[in-house]
Amino acid sequence: MIGCLENIDIVMVNTTHPGNIGSAARAMKTMGLTNLVLVNPKQFPAEEASWLASGATDILDQATVTESLSQAIADCRLVIGTSARQRRIPWPLVDARQSAELALRESDKGRIALVFGREAMGLTNEELQLCHYHLNIAGNPDYDVLNVAMAIQIACYELRMCWQQTAEAASQQETQLQGGAQQLSQQMPLPTVRWDEDIATPQEMSGFIEHFEAMLIELDFLDPTNPRQIPTRLKRLFARVRMDKSELNLMRGMCTAVQAKLKASSTG
Amino acid sequence: MIGCLENIDIVMVNTTHPGNIGSAARAMKTMGLTNLVLVNPKQFPAEEASWLASGATDILDQATVTESLSQAIADCRLVIGTSARQRRIPWPLVDARQSAELALRESDKGRIALVFGREAMGLTNEELQLCHYHLNIAGNPDYDVLNVAMAIQIACYELRMCWQQTAEAASQQETQLQGGAQQLSQQMPLPTVRWDEDIATPQEMSGFIEHFEAMLIELDFLDPTNPRQIPTRLKRLFARVRMDKSELNLMRGMCTAVQAKLKASSTG
Repeated sequence: MIGCLENIDIVMVNTTHPGNIGSAARAMKTMGLTNLVLVNPKQFPAEEASWLASGATDILDQATVTESLSQAIADCRLVIGTSARQRRIPWPLVDARQSAELALRESDKGRIALVFGREAMGLTNEELQLCHYHLNIAGNPDYDVLNVAMAIQIACYELRMCWQQTAEAASQQETQLQGGAQQLSQQMPLPTVRWDEDIATPQEMSGFIEHFEAMLIELDFLDPTNPRQIPTRLKRLFARVRMDKSELNLMRGMCTAVQAKLKASSTG
Repeated sequence: MIGCLENIDIVMVNTTHPGNIGSAARAMKTMGLTNLVLVNPKQFPAEEASWLASGATDILDQATVTESLSQAIADCRLVIGTSARQRRIPWPLVDARQSAELALRESDKGRIALVFGREAMGLTNEELQLCHYHLNIAGNPDYDVLNVAMAIQIACYELRMCWQQTAEAASQQETQLQGGAQQLSQQMPLPTVRWDEDIATPQEMSGFIEHFEAMLIELDFLDPTNPRQIPTRLKRLFARVRMDKSELNLMRGMCTAVQAKLKASSTG
């Protein structure tokens, strides 16, 4: 399954602040979702919504407005509703990553709804009982008051990630089937072993890079008036390797030795 | 590793709208992060920031304000900066999930910074070159203009998810160890990035190391009769970074330049 992001509706119930509708539209569009359904919004259309939607006003223009949640989800085959806490009667509960998988898996077959509640009190028990699954986004138990547009951003982000990974897996499989094509991507090193020396701080690193560049200029290897890509490539090289303090001292020692020799030959 | 969310700083550079600072504080607190660093914000403190922070004004009260990014990250061991697009010279690139893994893996050992740029134009090339990794959040290529507070929400959410999963895995592992079962080894996925240059071959690498050592001997920096750990540390440094061909040519060019200067001074 690759799934179809366009078949997944974001449903906002009884939203109070039009700014949240606008932010939600922008959040959706950044992740490739297009269908916004507004159940009885307090104020819509609204200037603040359009302003916060930024380049996603097309999502607002195409938004559907309904009177009730049951109308909004009437033709949906799968409905997932957000819930901040587990209810008295436990419901099948998923996190945002699982809800993305569930939604995408069925999105080729029909419409899916992800439902988000009111700013102050979420969805009612009656509304939650209209849902096949409840979605609870991971969070800090001491402060679990995610803004509704932020919750929509996370849900849409997980949909995008899931969609992308599935698409990549499908294309890799295809490449493998075509046989023998080389991977273009390079794996970057991530040292995970216990190290003998502390890692150099950014301050130490920028001191070293300055020193190294100064030495290259004295060597006439680097032309400060036309450095080309040399400084960038050096910064990348030494940032990527994440030098430890002893390596940094070693390299600085080399720079100092070069400078001392150059000085001795010019004065000698 | 379970990692320590409190050791991970969220750094916002040159933020224009104080509302975004407030929303970011709320986003952080919902995921259990506490340290906000503001580099030269346009307006702070500000009423709008406090208003949008909602119950997270403590994060604003404790926020650090600095003049420059290099000040903000001075004592950080790992710096990850957001970048909307791949740069001309590719940098090690991670997505939000990988950046969370990277950050948490090292967060017990020291401070980590996740850096977010200006609303209109992100981070400058100079700022991005201060970073070990670049973070690119998955998104719609046709509308890749995530609001900065939304980007922070996603990054913090991935940190929370990673932290939670690791904590769960650790408690499972403990259960298994108590029952005499084998240790679970958790492998982290490595970030991949398309690179502009081929990686140097092992043969090219050993040629370079020889050249580098010869230069160090001519500099009287390395004593071949008593090399101590210098050759080993150099080999480890350059093996670890997996140099590409252009980096290798650059470093060999430097060695040749040093040798030419030494020769000129001895014969001149």
